Amino acid sequence: MVIRNLHRLSRLFQPVSVVPKNAEVKRHDITSKSQRLMLELGIIRQASPGCFHFLPLGVKSLEKLTRLVDEEMKKIGGQKIIFPTLTNAKLWEKTGRLETVSSELFQIKDRHDQSYILSPTHEEAASNLLASLAPISYKHLPLKLYQITSKYRDEMKPRFGLMRGKQFLMKDMYSFDTDLETAKHTYDEICKSYDRIFRRIGIDFVKVVGCSGHMGGELSHEYHYKADVGEDKILTCNKCNYSANTEVSGEEKCPNCGNTSVKIHLGIEVGHTFLLGEKYSKPLNATFLNNHGKPDVLQMGSYGLGLSRILAAVIEVMSSEQEIRWPQILSPYSVIILPPKSGSKEETHIKDSGLVDSLYEKIETTCNLQDNVLIDDRTNFTIGRRFLEAKKNGYPFIVTLGKKIVENPLLYEITNLKTNETLFLSENDLMNYLRSQLSSFSSDSDNK
Amino acid sequence: MVIRNLHRLSRLFQPVSVVPKNAEVKRHDITSKSQRLMLELGIIRQASPGCFHFLPLGVKSLEKLTRLVDEEMKKIGGQKIIFPTLTNAKLWEKTGRLETVSSELFQIKDRHDQSYILSPTHEEAASNLLASLAPISYKHLPLKLYQITSKYRDEMKPRFGLMRGKQFLMKDMYSFDTDLETAKHTYDEICKSYDRIFRRIGIDFVKVVGCSGHMGGELSHEYHYKADVGEDKILTCNKCNYSANTEVSGEEKCPNCGNTSVKIHLGIEVGHTFLLGEKYSKPLNATFLNNHGKPDVLQMGSYGLGLSRILAAVIEVMSSEQEIRWPQILSPYSVIILPPKSGSKEETHIKDSGLVDSLYEKIETTCNLQDNVLIDDRTNFTIGRRFLEAKKNGYPFIVTLGKKIVENPLLYEITNLKTNETLFLSENDLMNYLRSQLSSFSSDSDNK
Repeated sequence: MVIRNLHRLSRLFQPVSVVPKNAEVKRHDITSKSQRLMLELGIIRQASPGCFHFLPLGVKSLEKLTRLVDEEMKKIGGQKIIFPTLTNAKLWEKTGRLETVSSELFQIKDRHDQSYILSPTHEEAASNLLASLAPISYKHLPLKLYQITSKYRDEMKPRFGLMRGKQFLMKDMYSFDTDLETAKHTYDEICKSYDRIFRRIGIDFVKVVGCSGHMGGELSHEYHYKADVGEDKILTCNKCNYSANTEVSGEEKCPNCGNTSVKIHLGIEVGHTFLLGEKYSKPLNATFLNNHGKPDVLQMGSYGLGLSRILAAVIEVMSSEQEIRWPQILSPYSVIILPPKSGSKEETHIKDSGLVDSLYEKIETTCNLQDNVLIDDRTNFTIGRRFLEAKKNGYPFIVTLGKKIVENPLLYEITNLKTNETLFLSENDLMNYLRSQLSSFSSDSDNK
Repeated sequence: MVIRNLHRLSRLFQPVSVVPKNAEVKRHDITSKSQRLMLELGIIRQASPGCFHFLPLGVKSLEKLTRLVDEEMKKIGGQKIIFPTLTNAKLWEKTGRLETVSSELFQIKDRHDQSYILSPTHEEAASNLLASLAPISYKHLPLKLYQITSKYRDEMKPRFGLMRGKQFLMKDMYSFDTDLETAKHTYDEICKSYDRIFRRIGIDFVKVVGCSGHMGGELSHEYHYKADVGEDKILTCNKCNYSANTEVSGEEKCPNCGNTSVKIHLGIEVGHTFLLGEKYSKPLNATFLNNHGKPDVLQMGSYGLGLSRILAAVIEVMSSEQEIRWPQILSPYSVIILPPKSGSKEETHIKDSGLVDSLYEKIETTCNLQDNVLIDDRTNFTIGRRFLEAKKNGYPFIVTLGKKIVENPLLYEITNLKTNETLFLSENDLMNYLRSQLSSFSSDSDNK
């Protein structure tokens, strides 16, 4: 039963870290609710300003998000690769970005005095990869390459925990097309894929006309979660529903219909798509062979999703000050089981029956929740205390072995944190209930 | 059929890169067979000396190895975390390693002049994490934390492709125990887990008494694949079978039984385990609460597996000069299907029957090979040419739709690259054959 032990709360490495209210020195670093909750609940831990350890619950959630993104990238023909973190600084010199973004770049030299960048993004690397090949034929385009790796940025002032750190996990995709028209088609297809990802996460998001900033290019869109700690200002027109970053639109009126009745929200940018055209491919000479057999410059797109930032942002949006809430599809565990307090009547009743283990196995198996069920086996604590902790930790479904497990027929108490309902169900009904509640989040449910 | 397209060879991003024999300038960088084959077959690509792109086939293989390692780490209660890549240099100063290994360390400063290391390993980070917590109780030990992340080393002379690069993928685990005896028990358990991982990969390995080098500690073992490009010398005693790195034993006689009849081999180090004791936990003050409620220094172990190096090493050991071979469990695809040449009698016979697609689906489904079957749809090439390419790429099973698909009953030709046998089988027999050949590598086959 070694594997099972991993899923017993008493064995889980979840060092809670309650910062006393009067500990001014440490608290001033904590600049968002998600950061505080993730620290207090042992999901992340700060190593140094802007650098975080992901603890087991954080890794589990991040891996779920990674799988979700992999699935959606594959649906649109995305091919997964890995670019090295160290990019030759000369490539950034050629595109002019070494100068324009240099204050945020971590630069490093190897012992042979060669300069590298700890890449915050890989447009140069992707262009150079394509340029270094024998030019591929127009028949093999569009090409959509993506990776999920750590990125680096020398932030002046790291803040909001995972939302603005020195190291963060990104999904970045690079598309290559023959001309701007097909590149725009690819761009739209990838935007639709982003829509699906955000729909599956299940939190309201806004897609707005974006500010290309240091990236440049023809066209850009940003994906935002609305939140008070957001660092971007988003305009939405009350009349035509057009949305844009106010860096593009200004704050006065809708640039689409001219209407002056607009809403301004703060937003956390969680995704950004760019139709880049030749901005990187031309200086780096990334070409393909056109239908006349002649080399032609590739038309590029670039598409980023901030995976570690999404994690923090959804917690920021969904949680209360006291209790964390996860989107069901990203919750580290879907179900937690609370066995009775040791020495209680209920515990005596089920003692040696193997009830807890068999319930655990049944949920895992019949609800397709392998690795997703946790037992709070700290039975020296009361059920009540463990229930409050389970709620604070935001496990979507809490199954309590309460007073009704001594009754005949035996009933389990299940609390659904999303709907806030508590039901008393037989084992079969419990399985059916969980299955129906979970099914809308399964991997292929959203194939539209 | 968007998903399927990913698994059509004509769509796969696999830029081959044949280096002409007379291209002296480029060839001098290619110092091993695995490096050359992986470059020629579009599995990796060099970005700069010691830095590589992983292309789709490389990523697929790496992800299989990652899953295998995750499975085995979980079996022994390993909990997955992520340490940041940037480690505060002060921690390395405290343990003395900033000085001893400094020439290989990539060091970087942020804009506030704080020094960091691009971590090649995380003993300091792990110790500091434990030290920063309220000391955990002896009841929660042993603790086994692991991660799978990129590591960095400023190699004087990067070589052998993935085997000695500046960036590489490692699995590193850190164990924490109450005393040396239990720490030794944990050490043995993790070594057994490594044995299982290497047995499941299926290539002969040797476990030898290791050289602790810069790591220090009480005890160390290395895992090696024997290969001519190996940089370590391994002694094995012909009498008592004792094995050690010659850095420990010398090359003359067995340090265990004194026998002078010994074999010396070259080895590629693919794993290394260290029983460290207090070497890192003491200077960094990583403690726990003992059974008297008093703080005590944690006893550490450290366990590394070079994942990207394993990939290269198995290819080095298994391949011929001309043809790559993969361990079945790490092959990017398990099966490749070769449909008939367009315009051939065979193609005419099956035209519009959907035979290829239905065979693809049947293999995927009945053999549990999702994402593991590839169709070589470049039917402008002859079957013969595509068969030779499939062999060169080392797909373990090649299913050819050859002359016998026009016969009744229809027979498929299957070539097993491991056994070198070719069989003609009906669809049902083909499924049974594949299932039986693949079963020994399934995830839970080796639970001993």
